[in-house]
Amino acid sequence: MTRYRALADELAHSIRTGVFRPGERLPSVRQTCAARRLSPATVFQAYYLLEEQGLVESRPRSGYYVASHPPARLPEPETPSRPDGDSRTLDVSALVFEVQQSAMYRDLVPFGSAFPSPLLFPLPRLGRALAASAVELDPWCTVDDLTPGHAGLRRQISQRYLVDGIAVAADEIVITNGALEALNLSIAAVTRPGDAVLVESPCFYAALQTLERNGLRAVEVPTHPRDGVDLDALETAIKRHAPRACWLMPTFQNPLGATMPEPAKRALVELLAVHDIALIEDDVYAELHFGRERSLPAKAFDRDGRVLHCSSFSKCLAPGYRIGWVAAGRHRQAIARLKLTGTLNTNVPAQLAIARYLERGGYERHLRRLRAALATQQAQYLDAIARHFPEGVRVTRPQGGYFLWLELPPGSDALRLHRQALEHGISLAPGPIFSARREFGTGLRLNVGHPLDERADAALRTLGVLVARA
Amino acid sequence: MTRYRALADELAHSIRTGVFRPGERLPSVRQTCAARRLSPATVFQAYYLLEEQGLVESRPRSGYYVASHPPARLPEPETPSRPDGDSRTLDVSALVFEVQQSAMYRDLVPFGSAFPSPLLFPLPRLGRALAASAVELDPWCTVDDLTPGHAGLRRQISQRYLVDGIAVAADEIVITNGALEALNLSIAAVTRPGDAVLVESPCFYAALQTLERNGLRAVEVPTHPRDGVDLDALETAIKRHAPRACWLMPTFQNPLGATMPEPAKRALVELLAVHDIALIEDDVYAELHFGRERSLPAKAFDRDGRVLHCSSFSKCLAPGYRIGWVAAGRHRQAIARLKLTGTLNTNVPAQLAIARYLERGGYERHLRRLRAALATQQAQYLDAIARHFPEGVRVTRPQGGYFLWLELPPGSDALRLHRQALEHGISLAPGPIFSARREFGTGLRLNVGHPLDERADAALRTLGVLVARA
Repeated sequence: MTRYRALADELAHSIRTGVFRPGERLPSVRQTCAARRLSPATVFQAYYLLEEQGLVESRPRSGYYVASHPPARLPEPETPSRPDGDSRTLDVSALVFEVQQSAMYRDLVPFGSAFPSPLLFPLPRLGRALAASAVELDPWCTVDDLTPGHAGLRRQISQRYLVDGIAVAADEIVITNGALEALNLSIAAVTRPGDAVLVESPCFYAALQTLERNGLRAVEVPTHPRDGVDLDALETAIKRHAPRACWLMPTFQNPLGATMPEPAKRALVELLAVHDIALIEDDVYAELHFGRERSLPAKAFDRDGRVLHCSSFSKCLAPGYRIGWVAAGRHRQAIARLKLTGTLNTNVPAQLAIARYLERGGYERHLRRLRAALATQQAQYLDAIARHFPEGVRVTRPQGGYFLWLELPPGSDALRLHRQALEHGISLAPGPIFSARREFGTGLRLNVGHPLDERADAALRTLGVLVARA
Repeated sequence: MTRYRALADELAHSIRTGVFRPGERLPSVRQTCAARRLSPATVFQAYYLLEEQGLVESRPRSGYYVASHPPARLPEPETPSRPDGDSRTLDVSALVFEVQQSAMYRDLVPFGSAFPSPLLFPLPRLGRALAASAVELDPWCTVDDLTPGHAGLRRQISQRYLVDGIAVAADEIVITNGALEALNLSIAAVTRPGDAVLVESPCFYAALQTLERNGLRAVEVPTHPRDGVDLDALETAIKRHAPRACWLMPTFQNPLGATMPEPAKRALVELLAVHDIALIEDDVYAELHFGRERSLPAKAFDRDGRVLHCSSFSKCLAPGYRIGWVAAGRHRQAIARLKLTGTLNTNVPAQLAIARYLERGGYERHLRRLRAALATQQAQYLDAIARHFPEGVRVTRPQGGYFLWLELPPGSDALRLHRQALEHGISLAPGPIFSARREFGTGLRLNVGHPLDERADAALRTLGVLVARA
């Protein structure tokens, strides 16, 4: 499975980036077999997959060509959000719970879910690593691996930063119960109740819930659905509200899928340095890039330890293991102390298991497979949405992750659609849960992390009808 | 090992409770072998152990007798604490960190540690349960077992309550990252910044740290070193400060080891019901009772869901697994929501592993062994302390857990002793870290959860010299 998917992914990338143009002939199966030392079956499988995705078409007795009519696509949203610029205390948590609670049942079509399909992860192999770690466990680990966490795991994480040229020492890293604890600890370390915190608009609802719980004031900053937060608007907000921190997702933002270009990330960190503001960088989708290169995190441009880079293995390797971390820069000690008084420590066997898995290799191979699967699913969903949804709908095309953001036609009501969809056994994540002012009434986050099977396709058709009717 | 320890434990209990009195002859080895269907080797081993503990003496050609001069004992502390009755915001956290950080090295004699020896736990057998759970993991568990947690584990915990006649439904239980998260969630659920919270005096330093972090005011209530918190004083404090919650450890209190008699626990819950105050009950040492019967928790007397009963498997079964829970009564939904926005979920394979371990049986056998080991160690430490420490020292004799509380002679300085001891490679938990006002300058919590080997005995001798010199 790996080989043909890898080949299909590579060719899809070449098509998307214009190396092969619409109507051009792809290398023949025979050529490709010889050049790549692959079997004909593998190459055929790759071409079939590309055909299924609508990227190539076969012409009898002639070979494979880049599709001249690429799959139907709806336009992308192009308008940045326009929040009012005020700061406010929050009361969104109850709405978020109401919506999210309804998405937690296994028998719903999980378009509103925050998680990709667990079947995409190497859980059996991880399980064997966990089994070996558990059986060989040195009892003293339960004492030695107290916060900041298992030294071997922190070293492995540090090495992964280094591959991207980012210097993060192992002793700057604190292991946490998933990224969410890392983010919560970060907010607690750099703010006091009443402080202003800048967030994207729309933004991840858990950020709003954390600000609400900590008595902080949220300032929503205009955000472009493809390029992320607007730096001019961010500077204006800084001058007006003197915030203590920004909580941002510069890469594959939740819910938009937006990614700030690297120069913008660099400028962001420089701007925050001038005003001495901490950046809490939520980077949990970083590994899920469809292109060859990852987009560097803002942390890569941090010169004075002001970026608290939060991530985890939950979305890219080990769902349910609850192993995350924060590369905490100058806030390292504060974070470790908050962790010690909050949850004391993180599950030791799981830390050892992930360290062992990373040591033994195979992570890159898994990631390539996962990225290819998510890219394929995204293409299939985009195609199905174009087929089933009415004109006037816009949809993003993120370069990674597993969320699409839809803008429904003016006058639509995403919260109403969410309730109607539930009656059809479909969960949704409606726009208002991503906003301090319950804006984005026509917005919708759609999870494409689950295969587009018949049930999902039928669910999209149902949604299309509901949207058209409204 | 099990059998002779069990026999020794039973005989030690009979001696301590006066069934056999000083100077009386114990049943002969032959009688005991026949009555218990044990081998002579097993019975001899039990008698040797009791001899080592100073509880029995052998008389040549006559048999074993209850020691006529029972092991030397220092007097118990008898005076309840006398806090000033005021409420105050806190700034003890830095001191606690300074002291606790110094205790985290494996090569120190761990008298200041909060953990018992990890060698006391069935980590290999647990590891096999974890291995089986990990390898057989249903991928959808990572979604289904989201907070409040794995249904099978919550059912097992509910059944354990039922054995003691306590009705706690599985759906009242929220699984947490150890008891500390349970306690933190409980405080967050029932208080707002500025509220007063009643605590024991002295009390567990993590309680003080949590109150400090949440901007709460601590009111320390007089506490007896054997019988726990003083209910009259508690009522006075309620009337004066109108607290929102009490955070108490009614059983094997940390650091005193005190246990409130059951009628006092009942009266406590009734008193709190009259004033509509929540009880956060930290009950992590409950399973570590030396006597045959456990002391019921205050939760047993809860009629209206006001007790948040917090516990974990960290001190009795699975250190490092970070599996705790809160039986949250009427605060169940609030707790689950705080957990969802705080750490989202608890490690799924560990939840499954503990559920599997509990299902397969063997937990009771492990607990009997653990209790016997801790009881034996306590007796050995008490004996060694009596030999090595000067007159004027008092020491508690808790009926469970693995802490002793020492009161040094007037004028001693436990913080200074802690620093001196560190230079000798010995960690200590000095009294002031258990107090909002850094009181208990002559108090010392001593961990007896590690075997009294030669190094530990030498360390006690060193401490005795340092105390005598001061």
